[in-house]
Amino acid sequence: MAAELFDYAELLRPDLPPAAARWTAFPKYNFVGGHNDADSVPVEGLIAAAATVLKREGSSLSTYGLQSGPLGYRPLREFVARKLANDAGIACSPDEILITSGSLQGLDLVNQVLLSPGDTVIVEQMTYGGAITRLKRLGVNIVGVAVDHDGLSSSRLKTALDDLKRRGIRPKYIYTIPTVQNPTATVMSEARRAEILGLSVDYGVPIFEDECYADLVWEGARPRALRGMVSDERVIHIGSFSKSIAPALRLGYLVAGWPLMSRILGIKSDGGSGALEQMILAEYCRDHFESHVRTLRKTLRRKLDVMIEALRTQFGAAAEFDDPAGGIFLWVKLPENVDTTRLMQLALQSGVAINPGAEWMTDAAAGQTRLRLCFAHPPEQVIREGIARLAEVCHREFAVPARSAREHR
Amino acid sequence: MAAELFDYAELLRPDLPPAAARWTAFPKYNFVGGHNDADSVPVEGLIAAAATVLKREGSSLSTYGLQSGPLGYRPLREFVARKLANDAGIACSPDEILITSGSLQGLDLVNQVLLSPGDTVIVEQMTYGGAITRLKRLGVNIVGVAVDHDGLSSSRLKTALDDLKRRGIRPKYIYTIPTVQNPTATVMSEARRAEILGLSVDYGVPIFEDECYADLVWEGARPRALRGMVSDERVIHIGSFSKSIAPALRLGYLVAGWPLMSRILGIKSDGGSGALEQMILAEYCRDHFESHVRTLRKTLRRKLDVMIEALRTQFGAAAEFDDPAGGIFLWVKLPENVDTTRLMQLALQSGVAINPGAEWMTDAAAGQTRLRLCFAHPPEQVIREGIARLAEVCHREFAVPARSAREHR
Repeated sequence: MAAELFDYAELLRPDLPPAAARWTAFPKYNFVGGHNDADSVPVEGLIAAAATVLKREGSSLSTYGLQSGPLGYRPLREFVARKLANDAGIACSPDEILITSGSLQGLDLVNQVLLSPGDTVIVEQMTYGGAITRLKRLGVNIVGVAVDHDGLSSSRLKTALDDLKRRGIRPKYIYTIPTVQNPTATVMSEARRAEILGLSVDYGVPIFEDECYADLVWEGARPRALRGMVSDERVIHIGSFSKSIAPALRLGYLVAGWPLMSRILGIKSDGGSGALEQMILAEYCRDHFESHVRTLRKTLRRKLDVMIEALRTQFGAAAEFDDPAGGIFLWVKLPENVDTTRLMQLALQSGVAINPGAEWMTDAAAGQTRLRLCFAHPPEQVIREGIARLAEVCHREFAVPARSAREHR
Repeated sequence: MAAELFDYAELLRPDLPPAAARWTAFPKYNFVGGHNDADSVPVEGLIAAAATVLKREGSSLSTYGLQSGPLGYRPLREFVARKLANDAGIACSPDEILITSGSLQGLDLVNQVLLSPGDTVIVEQMTYGGAITRLKRLGVNIVGVAVDHDGLSSSRLKTALDDLKRRGIRPKYIYTIPTVQNPTATVMSEARRAEILGLSVDYGVPIFEDECYADLVWEGARPRALRGMVSDERVIHIGSFSKSIAPALRLGYLVAGWPLMSRILGIKSDGGSGALEQMILAEYCRDHFESHVRTLRKTLRRKLDVMIEALRTQFGAAAEFDDPAGGIFLWVKLPENVDTTRLMQLALQSGVAINPGAEWMTDAAAGQTRLRLCFAHPPEQVIREGIARLAEVCHREFAVPARSAREHR
């Protein structure tokens, strides 16, 4: 009887997403997810920072919020404020910065204060798969707007806004990843940014700017953030330490003025983000962030070169891609007969994980021949082997590349 | 125009809770919240643990989930499994344990997989205010059942279940804090636990067991957890390190079998809890948890004695309370003419923060003369001064205690 009674099936919310599958281990050739270069984790620096900051103020762990309130550990907010001023041209006080558990929590909080089922949002046609999944779960209408080599297309954005306006629909926000776009890895020019900011005012639609990869532009310098180009509240800005320090840390930030921030805090009931993480990161970053990221960028650029070389060797002209301006991924187009969702399934059986384009586009069908390859985590030799395996699988199933991987050499 | 356009008022979800107030600082006499004893934070132990674990495996921070998957850092889950077996009689594998960002996230996840607006849940009539707030936000019907000196009343629970059954309502769960009940600080006997487990089967209603204070029973030993007394899935169990190590850490855990766990993982999209916290805590706890908690309990018991003495000195017979079996709070009853919600407002002006009973009871009016006083955080002298101030304020407004605080001496 007990077994029958405590079958939870009847008690579950009716609108849940599918159950998770059991986790086993990462595949050997892991080209998905935001994992980073293992040797670049600043282990010694974090150990030293932990000792210093805990010796100085470890007893404050006894209080929720570390005497800093619900926005997060104040020295970390002060660091983020300085960093945003120097790198992104954003003038904001630590009181306009909320420390979040990864930029994912920033995404969730903004969605939770703005979106009800049936609402409409505008996103880039090619965009972060996790953002699409979240929006679908919330039951909102997703309008995808084309991107080009300069990021979100302002002319297409205007067309979409006009069309919605004609239909009496005011979208809740325009979600964009302007600096190292995910997945295309472009960096939007300031001229384009200005056009998009203008449209935001003209149509009364705020911009939701996700800059979680912005520290990883190869050249270092980057255009001002959209939030940095205006003095009003039209841009909500989020960022992350996942890509610049380590993804397992779960620390990001959200920038917004008090009218919106006070509503976000009103629904943020998690008791704050992890204090050890915040304290150790603040202590480490104060003196070491810039030099760490400078070195990390070189490492990532080198790994990207390895991946590009491996793709050219293995796929030849069959794999098309632009040279990324920064980041940790490459967005690849294969010939028309390839279905990357099928390729993903087959490749996984050979230990190779890829993101099929369908998951990274608002129009899944349009992503059929695309795939996203993350190059930050696997060692260089593993990148080479993994791409060779991928080519073998792809050749076997789709005759792409036309010659087998071996013959390419 | 911009100011008008980027007034977010029109864009917000219509059903949001009120905006947060700006945080300033903790009041001097802070008798609210789960803050703990500052001198008891094991600072040196955490520094040593950080150095050891990061030296050994710091580079794994480069991957989401630290190669342990979405349930959390495996060595921490292994520690929790051993601890639950030894202390609470729960036999579970690390694969039935999910590391959460505080037990608050556990509460939220369970609510999210089970509750839709209009659903019914049973809770203890006096219970954790944060649980009540969350349930109200979710739009569920809250049925409060009386507690006595042995915790949740099984006869009253049966009456409530009968009544609901007659009305065709199957509640989604029975939420209980059996070990150091919040706010009454009682520990439920195993006999009572068995009765409640029986009702759970009889009526087909799972139990949601919150044991976040269970490490702080003065005697050390505690009855088996409800989850430890059955072999089926009728009990969902959550716990926390907030009270035993430090609240700022944001680490808790949830125990459930795979059928439910897989649904919980299906909605948990936060990329995991903070890795530094999990690694450092696992490393620290393996060798030091037990001795740390043993010492902490003595410290807390001493602080409780200081508070009881201060209440007797300042309030005399006007303050009624039972001696807590453990924990960090005292549940006090004042004479009938006192309104503790009003007292809370007035006391705050004198730097004294208290939880009025109305916030800790399902029937707010029934809590009018009650208050919860947390004694773990303020130093002993601050406890004495704060209770003296509270008595002054209460005397001035309600003539309770009848004589002023000074005359009591």
